[in-house]
Amino acid sequence: MSRCRIKPRTGTSFIIKKGQYLKVTDPEGQQVSDMLAYNAADKREYISSGRSFDYASRIFLTTGDVLYSNRSRQLMTIVNDEVGRHDFTLTPCSKDTFRIIYGDKQPHHGCQGNLERALARHEIEPDNIPCAFNIFMNVDVNGRTGEIKVLPPLSEAGQSVTFRAEMDLIVALTACSAGQSNNFTYKPIDYEVLNTLTVEN
Amino acid sequence: MSRCRIKPRTGTSFIIKKGQYLKVTDPEGQQVSDMLAYNAADKREYISSGRSFDYASRIFLTTGDVLYSNRSRQLMTIVNDEVGRHDFTLTPCSKDTFRIIYGDKQPHHGCQGNLERALARHEIEPDNIPCAFNIFMNVDVNGRTGEIKVLPPLSEAGQSVTFRAEMDLIVALTACSAGQSNNFTYKPIDYEVLNTLTVEN
Repeated sequence: MSRCRIKPRTGTSFIIKKGQYLKVTDPEGQQVSDMLAYNAADKREYISSGRSFDYASRIFLTTGDVLYSNRSRQLMTIVNDEVGRHDFTLTPCSKDTFRIIYGDKQPHHGCQGNLERALARHEIEPDNIPCAFNIFMNVDVNGRTGEIKVLPPLSEAGQSVTFRAEMDLIVALTACSAGQSNNFTYKPIDYEVLNTLTVEN
Repeated sequence: MSRCRIKPRTGTSFIIKKGQYLKVTDPEGQQVSDMLAYNAADKREYISSGRSFDYASRIFLTTGDVLYSNRSRQLMTIVNDEVGRHDFTLTPCSKDTFRIIYGDKQPHHGCQGNLERALARHEIEPDNIPCAFNIFMNVDVNGRTGEIKVLPPLSEAGQSVTFRAEMDLIVALTACSAGQSNNFTYKPIDYEVLNTLTVEN
């Protein structure tokens, strides 16, 4: 498959097969991509932040860490991470996020809206969108107070993270719509589905 | 309603009405209670850690904080918290938790199993059990590395946390089954549903 581009403030979905690789690239730098994954054979099985945190004993996941499902099965493994900082605590930005946090009077539908549209063709309901793996999202966590701050991503132009699918998956990806997440510049996200892993040094 | 007791390593579920209060007490100290909440009128709406973190801008929630649903609506407000430390990042302990983390050969069904049983009578499927609000669970988070450590709860015998229901809710509660969460002593949890709030000083 050739490299695909997700336009700013949009999203997409696709199938990847067990053993294939998904490479997500930030082409311009400082952009976030919310990722969801569902078992293609049974969409009631989906990516679970809580299970993944528990088994990694860490809330920041990187190379070697596994994204687990709600059924405690392995969905994806992070096999190459050029950035090293992603978020897995927050739900996708939405109309309500923009209304409640930003005070927007006519809020954008956000990553939530884009994911809903992208997943509708797989008959996945909006209510079945859990916490996303927010690629490149840089959420500072104060370990004493629990306070979180959404900071500009650490990703530089051209940096990527690559996942191996551990089962056949429906994957949805966005180019994030929230200003706070991407330093108030709405940019695209690139992705490729690969049959073999090539790590450039 | 009189005070009810959840026996060690079990769970329960019940309905609370909008405006009623749920008081959860740790009768012996250092015990955890995993709590889930669903909109009683539409069970597809459920408690969401990601939405709640986003709107609080904090991952440790206490008095005054709101537990939001996946639809960004208010489910419960924490109105009185005598302990001040709870977890909202982890999914309920399960057979798989005990197998993967503890290496148990014949694992207990855990809070997940108890919640599944308690929610079955409301026709809520096991797959629809998200990250729980883990009352009194003390999870240390290293803000630099993201490493998490499950420590003994800070709750002393008789201390409680009280929630106000912001809509009619199906609530499920456990007396936690995981040794790591309760300093390896499996104890009961008490709860009351109250029509008025009485705060003792």
